[in-house]
Amino acid sequence: MSLVTVGTVAFDSIETPFGKADMVVGGAATYISLAASYFTKDQGIVSVVGDDFPEEELKYMKKRGINLDGLEIKPGEKSFYWAGRYHDNMNKRDTLVTDLNVLADFKPKVPLRLRSAKYLMLGNLTPEIQLKVIKQMRKRPKLIAMDTMNFWMDVALDSLKKTIKQVDILIINDEEARQLSGEYSLVKAAKEIHKMGPKFLVIKKGEHGALLFSDNKMFYAPALPLAEVYDPTGAGDTFAGGFMGYIAKSGSTSFENMKRAVIYGSAMASFCVEAFSIGRLKSLRASEINARVKKFERLVAFSL
Amino acid sequence: MSLVTVGTVAFDSIETPFGKADMVVGGAATYISLAASYFTKDQGIVSVVGDDFPEEELKYMKKRGINLDGLEIKPGEKSFYWAGRYHDNMNKRDTLVTDLNVLADFKPKVPLRLRSAKYLMLGNLTPEIQLKVIKQMRKRPKLIAMDTMNFWMDVALDSLKKTIKQVDILIINDEEARQLSGEYSLVKAAKEIHKMGPKFLVIKKGEHGALLFSDNKMFYAPALPLAEVYDPTGAGDTFAGGFMGYIAKSGSTSFENMKRAVIYGSAMASFCVEAFSIGRLKSLRASEINARVKKFERLVAFSL
Repeated sequence: MSLVTVGTVAFDSIETPFGKADMVVGGAATYISLAASYFTKDQGIVSVVGDDFPEEELKYMKKRGINLDGLEIKPGEKSFYWAGRYHDNMNKRDTLVTDLNVLADFKPKVPLRLRSAKYLMLGNLTPEIQLKVIKQMRKRPKLIAMDTMNFWMDVALDSLKKTIKQVDILIINDEEARQLSGEYSLVKAAKEIHKMGPKFLVIKKGEHGALLFSDNKMFYAPALPLAEVYDPTGAGDTFAGGFMGYIAKSGSTSFENMKRAVIYGSAMASFCVEAFSIGRLKSLRASEINARVKKFERLVAFSL
Repeated sequence: MSLVTVGTVAFDSIETPFGKADMVVGGAATYISLAASYFTKDQGIVSVVGDDFPEEELKYMKKRGINLDGLEIKPGEKSFYWAGRYHDNMNKRDTLVTDLNVLADFKPKVPLRLRSAKYLMLGNLTPEIQLKVIKQMRKRPKLIAMDTMNFWMDVALDSLKKTIKQVDILIINDEEARQLSGEYSLVKAAKEIHKMGPKFLVIKKGEHGALLFSDNKMFYAPALPLAEVYDPTGAGDTFAGGFMGYIAKSGSTSFENMKRAVIYGSAMASFCVEAFSIGRLKSLRASEINARVKKFERLVAFSL
């Protein structure tokens, strides 16, 4: 197995200025693996759902080459559920409901076939669960990437730092990088976070793009300015999925290749927000992805 | 004359988390012309000060090749004065004092020598004054650029739109672009603003870079992530000065050349914030500017 992702597979109810979507498919592992599926067919997820999760959605994931041996289906239980409402400008959202359900007692089991994956993506979950997954790997993956959120910085900073110490690349947003490092300047924040363990850091800035840091190297990828953003849900996970999918496909963790991975991740995220839920990620063609990354190339191209 | 700038020459008192500077040199025309002086020695300003403005500062501006024939010195009156305090993250500031002084009754007089300038930069002032300057030009400049602020959108929208109609390029920040257009998406905002007259639009996003729009073309210039920002005052004007200075020097208003101008403007702004007031703009070497724009080039460079 090339890429393994641990994270949620869930239901979302979303309200944006453009409309509503009730009980649609969501979850970090869903977005990550779907985005990655456009780059590798050699991937699997580790997650848990209740028996309320639609069979046809799991079939669809399998059809896209996603191995679901590590997806536990708990009979008589309900899947993780999140409901949120975005503000008018969509840069902020309020969480209306968080029902952990099956997630409350999630004990990840990485199937044997997945334990020797080269690339491991830890979607946002309790840091303990993320660490448990790392420990179940048969040998240390070539690259471990990790997402997290400010909630864990508030309630579980010590165990969060323990997990962060084990990973190669942290993929978080600017607010989270500032909270984790205690530094407002992202350049200083990156230096602090490097000291915590990760050799690489990606800071996602939403509509303002993303920064990649390693040692004294820095790369700034723009976000594509869009006329319409219908639903930002999952954009960060889709970025991570495109990023890791591209790394898995290309097989290099050089800084130059990571820059390309950031661009592919950004391109996938720019599709994600064009429709509710995973809508847009279901209907992508390779030619569209290629055209989109070329758009990113043109967007920043200049010659001195 | 190649470039003429109209705008304030003033005193500022500034408080940032890094310190205080009392009654230091400021003003849009000061920052714009100083930044532009690294690209052209064929420029002048149109402005007004009181007789409290230090002789040696005016001498310094002349030494940098800035023609001051259009700078009126009003005996017995005081120069425009602004005092502000930045919040901890320096993305927000509170205005503490605005003393218009000489500006209250400013009637711009463009000296004959300056009336045939090829490039005209209208710094942030009342839209009426900006329009008066355009009307005093002997023939229509090749490129008229204009800065403004949300204050004029609140209190003088009609006359603001009248002035905007006459210019080729509007250089404003994201918040202002959103207010002026009534559109949150910057892509849509650009379309609306093009309809108002300007063929080109630069949207400054502070630490998130700048966008250049023209017809259906779009360019995203990053801002250089910095470890320390000492004083953001004048960064936007310094951007405009670097931008117009580069255009005046290179003589082309093609989209490709404007992209380069945006990069030079961004580079100059990145210097500006490294010291209080115009401190850093006084001590720049050409080699530093060249090294800085190369840094911008490396910051966004990737190959697919």
